[in-house]
Amino acid sequence: MIVGFAGIGVMGKSMAGHILDKGYEVHVYNRTPSKAQELIDRGAVWQDSPGQLAAACDVIVTMLGYPQDVEQVYTGEDGLIPHAKAGSYLIDMTTSSPLLARRLAEQGQGKGLHVLDAPVSGGDVGAKNAKLSIMVGGEQADFEAVLPLLEILGSNIVLQGGPGAGQNTKMCNQIAIASNMIGVTEAIVYAEKAGLDPKKVLKSIETGAAGSFSLSNLVPRMLDGDFEPGFYVKHFIKDMGIALESAAEMKLELPGLKLAESLYRKLADAGYADKGTQALYKLWADPKD
Amino acid sequence: MIVGFAGIGVMGKSMAGHILDKGYEVHVYNRTPSKAQELIDRGAVWQDSPGQLAAACDVIVTMLGYPQDVEQVYTGEDGLIPHAKAGSYLIDMTTSSPLLARRLAEQGQGKGLHVLDAPVSGGDVGAKNAKLSIMVGGEQADFEAVLPLLEILGSNIVLQGGPGAGQNTKMCNQIAIASNMIGVTEAIVYAEKAGLDPKKVLKSIETGAAGSFSLSNLVPRMLDGDFEPGFYVKHFIKDMGIALESAAEMKLELPGLKLAESLYRKLADAGYADKGTQALYKLWADPKD
Repeated sequence: MIVGFAGIGVMGKSMAGHILDKGYEVHVYNRTPSKAQELIDRGAVWQDSPGQLAAACDVIVTMLGYPQDVEQVYTGEDGLIPHAKAGSYLIDMTTSSPLLARRLAEQGQGKGLHVLDAPVSGGDVGAKNAKLSIMVGGEQADFEAVLPLLEILGSNIVLQGGPGAGQNTKMCNQIAIASNMIGVTEAIVYAEKAGLDPKKVLKSIETGAAGSFSLSNLVPRMLDGDFEPGFYVKHFIKDMGIALESAAEMKLELPGLKLAESLYRKLADAGYADKGTQALYKLWADPKD
Repeated sequence: MIVGFAGIGVMGKSMAGHILDKGYEVHVYNRTPSKAQELIDRGAVWQDSPGQLAAACDVIVTMLGYPQDVEQVYTGEDGLIPHAKAGSYLIDMTTSSPLLARRLAEQGQGKGLHVLDAPVSGGDVGAKNAKLSIMVGGEQADFEAVLPLLEILGSNIVLQGGPGAGQNTKMCNQIAIASNMIGVTEAIVYAEKAGLDPKKVLKSIETGAAGSFSLSNLVPRMLDGDFEPGFYVKHFIKDMGIALESAAEMKLELPGLKLAESLYRKLADAGYADKGTQALYKLWADPKD
């Protein structure tokens, strides 16, 4: 079995590396070839296009940027679906649109392909340590077929339902994070404004009902003035946009998500698009930075 | 040393009970006397008014409802401050206004009293198990003097600063919870609307960056249709009101808190004031219930 990997960013590089380490033959494609060099040095085979990658491999994993990138790589003239061998497995691990995931699964099915959506959470650290949470949408049999491969990458792998269910689960993840980021940020700016020591406040509140991953992991970065990404503001805005679109499609009002998206847009407009999500703090701390 | 306790609700009963269990002489006052009967049966001494309670005790702990109750019990004609013996310690553990806490501390100081604000988090379970987080505002020496008493009630006891700092810290706690409640609720209604199994979604998302106390502890109650309080909607609205007022005082905009307060008000108007905060789910699930 030959594994293809398209999308060699921070996440993709770690993930493809783990698959290589397990002894699989791995072929790679990336829009910017230089980013794949390290994997090639470790034995990966370069392919010039998604189509060539598809033609050479039995399972193709994608870890791309935006839904339009996914659409292009899967359905473009030189894309995966037109060139994949019948019976191939295509696994999109990009956080992308649930609707697009369903559409790709249908198109794939028409050509005898098995298409799954399998976005992840856990970030660069999770990718590096192979501890990703992987949320899968697709057919049960297809899930079972690719599970050994997914187990190389993650530690919490759940088939959430049919095509698109993985993406919808990831949207739930982002929706929960979105409002919580507002909450923890507001709590900390309140603490500072009230003349409290925010680190002492954390000590009182992080172990109780206010406790959360963001409070314990991102607030200390805010307070240390560390706004480097972890998770990019621009990517979070992308994800929230997908979730809002998908919610609108279902006639579902999500006022918290809407507020979060508008605040993060404001933050990006203020020049923080390439910072980490904890930079939300800057909207209060120094909006004109 | 005789300990007075005013406010024998669900929380107060457990707390006063722990102090009794440690062998202290405990005197009690409550607006509704019958609620104190169980403590009296266990050896507590009844007092007919806050003033009488103050006159009989060396340390008085209060666990009341609203800031106006605190103001009345402390400063009313038959209140604690007018009747407390010089050198007494008055500890208000109600979640109340930071401004009021500062005012009471000043008034107390003028009469040779030591007034501390010491709101808690951890709820009825924390009170029962003496595992409360206690956030204290007051003078260092006063804090040290009452610490042995507080240690009977809680496990995470932090002096956050001068008078009002305890209340401000509790506000930070409620601010963080407020937006997070929106986030976890929106995540779950999205999951259901998208046709996912929300309990399976929890399994994918609760261990990662979306993880929080509310997600793991309150969402399962939502899904089981259990809307009994834990923490009352009406009390949460009270707390958010105090936080908004205090933020306005500091000229601090908290759009997430504002949104949460408006949603919970809507929920209370729909008849859920006496349910637990997880009833926020009902705003989406069946707004006309």
